[in-house]
Amino acid sequence: MKIDGRPWRSVWTEANKTVVGIIDQTRLPHEFETMQLRSQADARLAIAQMHVRGAPLIGAVAAYGLALAMNENASDEALSQAHENLITARPTAVNLRWALDRMVGALASQTVAARPAVAWALAQEIADEDVELNRAIGNHGLALIEQIAAQKQAGEPVNILTHCNAGWLATVDLGTATAPIYRAFDKGLAVHVWVDETRPRNQGASLTTWELGQHGVPHTLVADNAGGHLMQNGQVDLCLVGSDRTTAAGDVCNKIGTYLKALAAHDNGVPFYVALPSSTIDWTMSDGLTEIPIETRHADELLTITGCADNGQVTRVRLAALGTQAANPAFDVTPARLVTGLITERGVCAASAPALAAQFER
Amino acid sequence: MKIDGRPWRSVWTEANKTVVGIIDQTRLPHEFETMQLRSQADARLAIAQMHVRGAPLIGAVAAYGLALAMNENASDEALSQAHENLITARPTAVNLRWALDRMVGALASQTVAARPAVAWALAQEIADEDVELNRAIGNHGLALIEQIAAQKQAGEPVNILTHCNAGWLATVDLGTATAPIYRAFDKGLAVHVWVDETRPRNQGASLTTWELGQHGVPHTLVADNAGGHLMQNGQVDLCLVGSDRTTAAGDVCNKIGTYLKALAAHDNGVPFYVALPSSTIDWTMSDGLTEIPIETRHADELLTITGCADNGQVTRVRLAALGTQAANPAFDVTPARLVTGLITERGVCAASAPALAAQFER
Repeated sequence: MKIDGRPWRSVWTEANKTVVGIIDQTRLPHEFETMQLRSQADARLAIAQMHVRGAPLIGAVAAYGLALAMNENASDEALSQAHENLITARPTAVNLRWALDRMVGALASQTVAARPAVAWALAQEIADEDVELNRAIGNHGLALIEQIAAQKQAGEPVNILTHCNAGWLATVDLGTATAPIYRAFDKGLAVHVWVDETRPRNQGASLTTWELGQHGVPHTLVADNAGGHLMQNGQVDLCLVGSDRTTAAGDVCNKIGTYLKALAAHDNGVPFYVALPSSTIDWTMSDGLTEIPIETRHADELLTITGCADNGQVTRVRLAALGTQAANPAFDVTPARLVTGLITERGVCAASAPALAAQFER
Repeated sequence: MKIDGRPWRSVWTEANKTVVGIIDQTRLPHEFETMQLRSQADARLAIAQMHVRGAPLIGAVAAYGLALAMNENASDEALSQAHENLITARPTAVNLRWALDRMVGALASQTVAARPAVAWALAQEIADEDVELNRAIGNHGLALIEQIAAQKQAGEPVNILTHCNAGWLATVDLGTATAPIYRAFDKGLAVHVWVDETRPRNQGASLTTWELGQHGVPHTLVADNAGGHLMQNGQVDLCLVGSDRTTAAGDVCNKIGTYLKALAAHDNGVPFYVALPSSTIDWTMSDGLTEIPIETRHADELLTITGCADNGQVTRVRLAALGTQAANPAFDVTPARLVTGLITERGVCAASAPALAAQFER
C-alpha cells in the first residue's frame, strides 16, 4: 500500500540480504521511522516489543529473523536455538510457530553452507505468499461488501466496524480485514469504516486510521465502548476483524475486546466476519477458550500512553494515580457460535469444524 | 468518604451560602483541587465541562446552581431562565431535570424575598437526601455481595466489575454502585473490584481507582476491552454499575460501553446489577433505545488525553494523526432483558415495569 503516494511493504530486505527493514509501528502515527534488523536478536526484540505486530507480519519477520540467524551461524545447533529463541517472542499468534516450523523444516535437510541462501529465499517466499493470500481474501470479502452495497441507496456507504489493526501494517501488504475494504474502495464502492481505538495499545487509533487515511478510505475513530451503541442504532452493516489464532472449530482468538463486539453484533443481527490466512489456523486446537494461551502484557501499557504533546514532542503520560494496579490480557476468544463466517484465501465458510475442514481438505 | 483520612463530600457550601465548593474532577488523579462556584453560570459550566459529573451529583450541583441564581435575582423571570439555562448543561442524565423541577416547584409559590433562603435549604436537602438514598442502596446491595461471599472459600474475594465512576465522586457521598462495595469492605468481607478504565474520559482510571484507593478497597484497573475475557474465565462474580437514566420498564442508560459488559455478563451467567436512586428513574419513558437522548460529546475527548508526564507536569497529548475524524457518543442503553436486577433505595427488584412500579407504588 502507499504512504504519501509511494508504495511500501511492512517488511523488506536491504544490503544484499544482511539487513531486514521494518516500519517502526510503535512510533506511528506521530513519527514515520524505519528500523534495520541486523541479527536474530534484533528480530526477536522487534516482535516482542511490538515494533512489528499482527499475526501474519510476526510470521514473516520471524522467518527473516531465522534467515538473519543463518547468516550468523547455520549449524544444526544454531538453527535449533534460533527457532527456540524466536518462537518465544510472543505466545498467542500461531503464525510465529507456523513460519518458524516451515523454515526449520526446509533448512534441516540442507547443508550448512546452503542454509543461508535457502533461508532468505524461503523468508521472501513466505512474505510474498502473505500478500497473495491477502489478495485472495480481499476478493472473497469483496463479494460480501457488494451484497450489502446492493441493498443500499445510491451513494449511501457500507458501514464496516473493525477492531485493532488487521490492516496492511499487520501483514506484509494489503491486510486481512482491510483487504476486502481496500478492494471495495478501489472498485469505487462507497465504504466507511468505524475504527475501534483498541486500548490499551491503541492500534486502531494509531495504525488503522493512519493507513486508511493514507489510502483515502473514509473512516471514523470511536472508543472501544461505542460499537455496541452504533450497532443498536443501525450504524454498522458489517463487522470485519482479523485473527491471531483460529481453532479447527472456528473459535477466533484476536485482540482483546473482539469478543465484546461479536456479542453486540450477534445481539443486533449484524454480520460478524473474520478474515484470516490459513496460516492463522491452529489445526491442533478445537476449544479456543480452554486451549489458546492468552498473552498477558505489562501493566504500563494501560497505565501510560504516548502521544504528541501541544509542543510537538512525542510524550508519554501516566493516566492513573501512582501505584495503581492494572491487568493487561492482550487477547480474547470469540466462540465460533458468534462468528457469521470466516474469510480465508480459499473463500468464505462457516466458523465450524466441518466447514473449515471441507475448505482445506485439498 | 475520606481523602487522606479526612472526610469529604463532593459538593458543599461556603461563605454563608454565597459560594458552592466542588472537587475539580477533571484534574484527578494527578491533582487534587477544589473549585468555587459563585454564580449559576459557574454551576452550569462546571456541569457542562464535567468538573462535576455523575447523575446524582449533577442533580445536586444544579440545585445549588439554582440557589446561586436566586442570590443574583429571585424574580419569576429569573427563576424560569435559571431553570432553562441549567437544564441544558447535559442532556442525558435525568437527575438534572428532576432536581431543577423540584427546586422550581418549591420556589414558585414563595415570595421573591423568601426564595433565596428556601432555595439554599432545599438544595441542601437534595444533597443530604442523596447520601441517605445511597446509604440505603449500600445496605440492599450488601446482601447480594454477602450471598456470593457465602459460596466462596474463606479469604477468597468477591470479584466485582464496575464501569465508569458510580462512586462517591459521582454522587454527594458513598456512591451508587460503590455503596454496597464500601459497605461490604467496611464490614470485613473480602472484595476486589475490576475497574474499567472507561474511555474516552477514563473516569474509571482517574476517579474510581483513586477513590477506591483512598478507602483501601483492593482493585485492579483493566481496559474496557478486557471485561468479556475476565467473565469468560470466571474472574467476575458480579457486575455493578450506575445509571444516568432508567426507564419505567427498567432499561438502563449509563456510560458508553455498559451495554457491552451487560452482554458479556448475560453470555457468561454473571449477575448484572444496576444501583440507582429513584431520582434516576424517568417514569415518562418505557423504551430506552428509542426515547433517551444520547449526548454526543466533542471528538477531542477521544483524540487527546491528559496525563502526568515523566517530568511531573500534567500534559495533554494527541493520540491519533492530525485531522482524524472521531465520533463520541457518551452513553448507551442496556435493555432491561440484560439486567439481573435494580438496586434502589427501596430494595432490589427486577428490571421490569411491574417490578419497578410495585417497588415505588407507595
